[in-house]
Amino acid sequence: MRLVTYLENDLPKLGAVNDDRVVDLARASSGRLPSTMIEFIEMGAQALDFARELVYGSDNPASVPLESVKLLAPIPVPRRNVMCVGWNYAEHFEEGLNKRGPSDAEQMPEYPTFFTKLTTTVIGPGEGVQFNRKISEQVDWEVELAVIIGRRGRNITQEEAMNYVFGYTIANDVSTRDLQRRHGGQWFRGKSLDTHCPMGPWIVTADEIEDPHNLRLSLKVNGVVKQDSSTKYMVFRIPRLIQELSLGSTLLPGDIILTGTPPGVGFARTPAEFLRPGDVMDLEIEKIGRLSNPVVEFND
Amino acid sequence: MRLVTYLENDLPKLGAVNDDRVVDLARASSGRLPSTMIEFIEMGAQALDFARELVYGSDNPASVPLESVKLLAPIPVPRRNVMCVGWNYAEHFEEGLNKRGPSDAEQMPEYPTFFTKLTTTVIGPGEGVQFNRKISEQVDWEVELAVIIGRRGRNITQEEAMNYVFGYTIANDVSTRDLQRRHGGQWFRGKSLDTHCPMGPWIVTADEIEDPHNLRLSLKVNGVVKQDSSTKYMVFRIPRLIQELSLGSTLLPGDIILTGTPPGVGFARTPAEFLRPGDVMDLEIEKIGRLSNPVVEFND
Repeated sequence: MRLVTYLENDLPKLGAVNDDRVVDLARASSGRLPSTMIEFIEMGAQALDFARELVYGSDNPASVPLESVKLLAPIPVPRRNVMCVGWNYAEHFEEGLNKRGPSDAEQMPEYPTFFTKLTTTVIGPGEGVQFNRKISEQVDWEVELAVIIGRRGRNITQEEAMNYVFGYTIANDVSTRDLQRRHGGQWFRGKSLDTHCPMGPWIVTADEIEDPHNLRLSLKVNGVVKQDSSTKYMVFRIPRLIQELSLGSTLLPGDIILTGTPPGVGFARTPAEFLRPGDVMDLEIEKIGRLSNPVVEFND
Repeated sequence: MRLVTYLENDLPKLGAVNDDRVVDLARASSGRLPSTMIEFIEMGAQALDFARELVYGSDNPASVPLESVKLLAPIPVPRRNVMCVGWNYAEHFEEGLNKRGPSDAEQMPEYPTFFTKLTTTVIGPGEGVQFNRKISEQVDWEVELAVIIGRRGRNITQEEAMNYVFGYTIANDVSTRDLQRRHGGQWFRGKSLDTHCPMGPWIVTADEIEDPHNLRLSLKVNGVVKQDSSTKYMVFRIPRLIQELSLGSTLLPGDIILTGTPPGVGFARTPAEFLRPGDVMDLEIEKIGRLSNPVVEFND
């Protein structure tokens, strides 16, 4: 199932996409299903089964054309920071070796590198990624497969890990390289500007992605391919990421994990390339869909 | 005013401490004030004035003895990760110089170092800090002044910054040094174990702390002083931290910023010292109070 958060009469709603229409899950279920994604995820497998029945099993559930609604990020306001993995495609690690700051690692680590993005980074399809030259002139792109956690757990084993995955979406881990480097080697600051985590267009539930480690993912800037790889090149696969993140730390339903970006980001190019106002980024992940966001000048 | 979150009949409530009694703000205001700290902070200055009037101005507002209630962390479930500052006391930076990993900076940075802790790290006074030797044998302490943000803002100037501060509390940025170092140089993972951010016992509102940069802060382990310094030695003061964190990033009411720890942490001692089950940490910050938490063995 493809699950969306969308605006209808300025109110956010939870919907399921069927062909080119969106079913309002709260309305179609007479209020038995909630109107926010996080509440829905928290309700677990039964809610998901019930939603499937409503969307695919009933005759003409109340729905509106997909093209008539404004999609938001599937989880517009995460319950805590978006968790991210650095250097998870070996070529991306290597491409940046001579371009990074002195405090960054020089060997591919044996353990994954984790950092976070503020919740206020999250925007939906089509929304503008803010560019303010007084804040950063090195705004960069990163296409990533995002994993949405489905249930509470800690000390999750790799064997059990995939049972904790609710679904997947596309994320753009927009990064300001100058800010990322100047704050004592910790990346949080440079990864956390408002609007710097476009996500969407929907969450595809885990049952529809047979092998999340074999999905082509790509990113274009103004129609020119910049990243084009496959999730099969991930160094640390999803079960390992969930194991490491949940070690002594409780994961919650609705938690978002970005799984790292393949080669082709701007800072590692020769010469380096960065985004400018007016640029448009188009991201695509096989079996999920497309996510497009413009870069907009913003001076406040 | 000293504001607490406490349990009464297993329900979390928002209270104000007056002498040795706690006033239930929702009840005393007949529901005009909310029952959670974040909602209260969001209501702004008028709510604060009204609460003050209720607590100090009225005759015998409904209250219970402070010693009869169980205090939780003032914000038991933050709306996003706790934001933290690394190396903000010059001596703490220097004490660790030869003990840190190769990927850490070697010069005191010109910009503050920021990272985050998961929301699930937060616990209240008296609660146990979990120790699981299979996860980490290097659990360390860090007393810190915590700043609570009072209102939404971004690109906040240093001149305006203190107007965004709602109040202060005590935090213990418990850190697992082995985990902190083995994840590619990013600290998030090693700082994010469940229960590894004790906070409390209350938020002291900003009006009661004339100079937050002149507070003695200390930490004892089993009665032995390990850290004893003053916030006057902060390298990056609160206005600078708020300026840097809000640059292009919206701060929200209820956001929590830990302002860094003074010298005396365990890993930097010769020989290094780490916590063990049964240890008790006592933290104290002048004009705020005391926060005590035991270390408890936990194997799951």
